[in-house]
Amino acid sequence: MDQGESPDIAQEYVAFDDGLALDYGSRLRRLEVAYQTYGQLNGDRSNAILICHALTGDQYVAERHPLTGKPGWWEMVVGAGRPIDTDRFFVVCANVLGGCMGSTGPLSPRDDTDALDPPPWGMDFPAITIRDMVRAQKRLIDHLGIRRLFAVVGGSMGGMQVLEWVATYPDMVFAAVPIACAASHSAQNIAFNEVGRAAIFADPDWMGGRYWEHGRVPAQGLAVARMVAHITYLSERALTRKFGRRTRASQSLSLLDDMFEVESYLRHQGSTFVRRFDAASYLAITRATDHFDLAEEHGGNLAAAFKGARTRFCIVSFSSDWLYPTEDNRAIARALNGVAANVSFVEITSDKGHDAFLLDEPDFHRALAGFLAGCAEHAGLPA
Amino acid sequence: MDQGESPDIAQEYVAFDDGLALDYGSRLRRLEVAYQTYGQLNGDRSNAILICHALTGDQYVAERHPLTGKPGWWEMVVGAGRPIDTDRFFVVCANVLGGCMGSTGPLSPRDDTDALDPPPWGMDFPAITIRDMVRAQKRLIDHLGIRRLFAVVGGSMGGMQVLEWVATYPDMVFAAVPIACAASHSAQNIAFNEVGRAAIFADPDWMGGRYWEHGRVPAQGLAVARMVAHITYLSERALTRKFGRRTRASQSLSLLDDMFEVESYLRHQGSTFVRRFDAASYLAITRATDHFDLAEEHGGNLAAAFKGARTRFCIVSFSSDWLYPTEDNRAIARALNGVAANVSFVEITSDKGHDAFLLDEPDFHRALAGFLAGCAEHAGLPA
Repeated sequence: MDQGESPDIAQEYVAFDDGLALDYGSRLRRLEVAYQTYGQLNGDRSNAILICHALTGDQYVAERHPLTGKPGWWEMVVGAGRPIDTDRFFVVCANVLGGCMGSTGPLSPRDDTDALDPPPWGMDFPAITIRDMVRAQKRLIDHLGIRRLFAVVGGSMGGMQVLEWVATYPDMVFAAVPIACAASHSAQNIAFNEVGRAAIFADPDWMGGRYWEHGRVPAQGLAVARMVAHITYLSERALTRKFGRRTRASQSLSLLDDMFEVESYLRHQGSTFVRRFDAASYLAITRATDHFDLAEEHGGNLAAAFKGARTRFCIVSFSSDWLYPTEDNRAIARALNGVAANVSFVEITSDKGHDAFLLDEPDFHRALAGFLAGCAEHAGLPA
Repeated sequence: MDQGESPDIAQEYVAFDDGLALDYGSRLRRLEVAYQTYGQLNGDRSNAILICHALTGDQYVAERHPLTGKPGWWEMVVGAGRPIDTDRFFVVCANVLGGCMGSTGPLSPRDDTDALDPPPWGMDFPAITIRDMVRAQKRLIDHLGIRRLFAVVGGSMGGMQVLEWVATYPDMVFAAVPIACAASHSAQNIAFNEVGRAAIFADPDWMGGRYWEHGRVPAQGLAVARMVAHITYLSERALTRKFGRRTRASQSLSLLDDMFEVESYLRHQGSTFVRRFDAASYLAITRATDHFDLAEEHGGNLAAAFKGARTRFCIVSFSSDWLYPTEDNRAIARALNGVAANVSFVEITSDKGHDAFLLDEPDFHRALAGFLAGCAEHAGLPA
């Protein structure tokens, strides 16, 4: 086990030379977990909050992103005096297994060869699950000497990880906040992901998945994947409010040009995304979300996943989220009720769609802060 | 003006050597309109129903498709004893302007050159509007000697054409049935279309739009466009009922393979589509739908589009259609009410999404048959 700096960008990471056994049966011989922390771990290590990031998020929760230069993705929520108050809590966020911001993933050197300078895994990276991501995070938490997390919090795919944390390590999680997520993907969720994958495969620079051998990036395909995903993150109303049918100043009648502002916006979303994300990571992670099925992991019974859990839950949904609609989130609350768990459920009224969990939603922020404060009192954390 | 058979497939078409002036200011010097008819035109030519097809539909409404060998796309609705009864009505359907089944479109030889064997228009095909499509149909209807259409009927983009028919030629339409459509595209509609366009542009065989010069077809990109569009045609519930989370028999853990049945289904939808549709047509026609804005064409007032119209309207929406939701259809009914038009509005309860207008929906079929029968009585058509 060593610890240091990745060669490319300044970040913390920890390497586990004993690797990680994966759900599908194979084994990574080496595991690296890149992470960032905010605030101070208290004396009895009881004030740690693990944040699980979404599909295309990363560990730069509350600081300038090293590649994009943009603010952290959850600076509204995490920081001094924020709902997740770094004056009080020690906040940890790890890049997920399969990611491309420092944790082991398709861009990591393969570990199944004796080559001195092994090539990246690329498309041969073993299939991973949400539970594998959680197991990798558990290694980091152990490494940090934290025996119990005060809370695990995450939205979207991050929420899936929150659920899996409680299901897999129930005694390690005092409080859990799964936000805008589901216990499994619907056929429509899978279908939208499949469109993204098909777009990546169709890119000339994809080269059968060996793009990295040629110094290429399937940027157009990955951009299309991001575009379609981005539509699912926004509500119809949010898109209408933002863009409506406004056309661009310079009108063109060419079939090649974008004419509406919403088109330029989507093209921009696609083209900026590819500068910070890897196509094979996108495939590995979307596969993991499609396969996630917490009920199936527990004999077809979602409630069984939480049997005996003493974790306090706050489940949050947003009224206009059509990617993981309120009913998906409510199904989790119902399962928790079925095993008499301590659960509160909040549907935030918002017209911003799935993305609302990342945006300025005061009701959500108040609910989150209030839940954490109540739990801190029960846990006996100093105020 | 001549009339004959297209060289490739057996179809009727009519050519207008005086061409067509287009909304955006340019002019096609030659116009061909390919069409099919069903039933018999009566002596006073008063029993004609024009059917307007949707984005990827064509004129093969009620007969075996010459390319796919599949039944016509509306055989449930059009035929002897069907809601649009060919024993009573003379049914006409023309391939839209910009299409790829015989009417003038991007695959037609360009007409702005004196070359003996001019190349196809490709991406230089002039931008067209829904009203241009309607004007081309009007030429066909004139050619057939029909002074007034008993009815114009169409779903989705076909519904847009129905609206435009009444707005442009109000005295020529006795009854109108716009189904599952809108008077303009929302930002979300445009966004989904833009994803499809971006996927086509990203295809290696797109070749900057000159694929036909190289005997290539941007099949993968067009397939992705079809996949994402297809998702918007189905409701979340329809996808769940059809596929749920069922996985394929032969499981693979490769990131390249499809694992869920819904993925195979979408891939199949994409790959079969490209055998019968042209990418440049797809671009030209989706552009026309995105630009369609009937209110804007009438000073920002949708009601003004129908002022003075004596046409009898039956507006149909489907409760689970999220592409053109009921509220979009109801907005059309409201505008018609605003000018005291004769309008009935029917929302069909269905969980099949936008595609419901093509499927077995007895309530819809009864409503359509009933409306047409009532109108026929008012028009004095023999029973």
